[in-house]
Amino acid sequence: MGQLIDGKAVAARVRAEVKQEVERLKAERGLVPGLTVVRVGEDPASKIYVTGKKKAAEEVGFNSWEEHPDASITEEELLSLVERLNEDPAVHGILVQLPLPKHIDAERIISAVRPEKDVDGFHPMNAGKLSLGKPGPRACTPFGVMRLLREVGCDPAGKRAVVVGRSNIVGKPMALMLLQADATVVICHRKSNLAEEVSRADIVVAAVGVPELIKGEWIKPGAVVIDVGMNRMPDGKLKGDVEFAAALERASFITPVPGGVGPMTIAMLMRNTLDAAKGGA
Amino acid sequence: MGQLIDGKAVAARVRAEVKQEVERLKAERGLVPGLTVVRVGEDPASKIYVTGKKKAAEEVGFNSWEEHPDASITEEELLSLVERLNEDPAVHGILVQLPLPKHIDAERIISAVRPEKDVDGFHPMNAGKLSLGKPGPRACTPFGVMRLLREVGCDPAGKRAVVVGRSNIVGKPMALMLLQADATVVICHRKSNLAEEVSRADIVVAAVGVPELIKGEWIKPGAVVIDVGMNRMPDGKLKGDVEFAAALERASFITPVPGGVGPMTIAMLMRNTLDAAKGGA
Repeated sequence: MGQLIDGKAVAARVRAEVKQEVERLKAERGLVPGLTVVRVGEDPASKIYVTGKKKAAEEVGFNSWEEHPDASITEEELLSLVERLNEDPAVHGILVQLPLPKHIDAERIISAVRPEKDVDGFHPMNAGKLSLGKPGPRACTPFGVMRLLREVGCDPAGKRAVVVGRSNIVGKPMALMLLQADATVVICHRKSNLAEEVSRADIVVAAVGVPELIKGEWIKPGAVVIDVGMNRMPDGKLKGDVEFAAALERASFITPVPGGVGPMTIAMLMRNTLDAAKGGA
Repeated sequence: MGQLIDGKAVAARVRAEVKQEVERLKAERGLVPGLTVVRVGEDPASKIYVTGKKKAAEEVGFNSWEEHPDASITEEELLSLVERLNEDPAVHGILVQLPLPKHIDAERIISAVRPEKDVDGFHPMNAGKLSLGKPGPRACTPFGVMRLLREVGCDPAGKRAVVVGRSNIVGKPMALMLLQADATVVICHRKSNLAEEVSRADIVVAAVGVPELIKGEWIKPGAVVIDVGMNRMPDGKLKGDVEFAAALERASFITPVPGGVGPMTIAMLMRNTLDAAKGGA
């Protein structure tokens, strides 16, 4: 019977660490990290996410701003807004909440954010720095997973880590981070024999967005299971990508959904913003 | 008994394709791709490599230049040189031959090359584009391996591809290219159980720089074996990272060393330079 990984508690710890460093930065250098969230139009989910990010930013002591242009904003106007934020020395982190309206090329907007201020870690330059093993803002969700592993005493070095899913925001950066931590890394997707791969994993990270795709019986006894999936079911409940109850029987540690990886994303966004402020000061 | 993959022949084919496209570009758009190789000081190996690159560039019909500052050049002077080449519209590709003298920060120089002209594919922006699955110049050696696989009819989709080695110029970009081609990708290194991993590989790419580290008996019957290793032995001969004779017995296809992957690197550099000229025109 595995132990739960309490993402809420770890995220709170990360935020407390950030808060403490912010206080020191203020006292020693008169510097207050600033985060601007750009939310375009009225996507209801975006509103919830942005509210959570602003709340977290305020709690750790950041300056926190929201830019909220109408959905009718043109791509050029949005680029000008990003450019203004790039130039603003009080803004250390710029987060453009996705999705953007269809008439706007999201890739072009993300690439326009100055890489040092890209606290989401989505800019090609930051994806490249991760791949090359250089410091830089890291994609928040996999960065949070690395912290969870550390918290439960799981050192990936020499372990077989199987990442299911290869998205740009979770799967690929996750694989690169695990590789940098000296795991033997396997990256799987819909063309892979998942049962076979997962059954040989010391660490499983599931990030596909298919409820209970990963069967509990595939989990190797003692494995650490990280479930990044957040699938909203018809009854309104959230389910992960892993068959939780059955996996719990075999894993040493496992993240619940919700309350596992989820809270880490915002916490690591705070970490990235703090680091951007320190680096840019 | 496996078949040899004739890298020399494939590389010649790639260069012939490039040459044909160059002729068309000249005829239709009056455009001649231009490649400048920057060689600092007198490293004997660098001289040989640069000579080979210049020769290949001339053969495919590029304009080809060499900048050859003295080893005493300062970092700032070298940056100015790179900046001048960045601004020169006749130069579509800039290749800074490594290694650079110790007083120069190679990373800073590489990052100064405009990403569109970084025909080595080493710029963080281009590493990022590869990771994100976006077009851009690709690291030449793994790009060449992808072409070799295609030439022998090996489609990586759904296959288990095991990459041994995780360097920034071969292992990591190789893994990302194989992933983009829908392989299940395993990345191994010195902390991995190589015998176990290699024995389950449909495609093996060895890029570690240790002669005959990969034993022939580990090769799964029918696997495709790509040996990127080029290890100079005391007797002056080159050896790969794979125990060749024994692996040949089991593989379906295998690259020899020399004459396998080696010739592909320069050929793909020509491809990248041509693409840079087409994109930049």
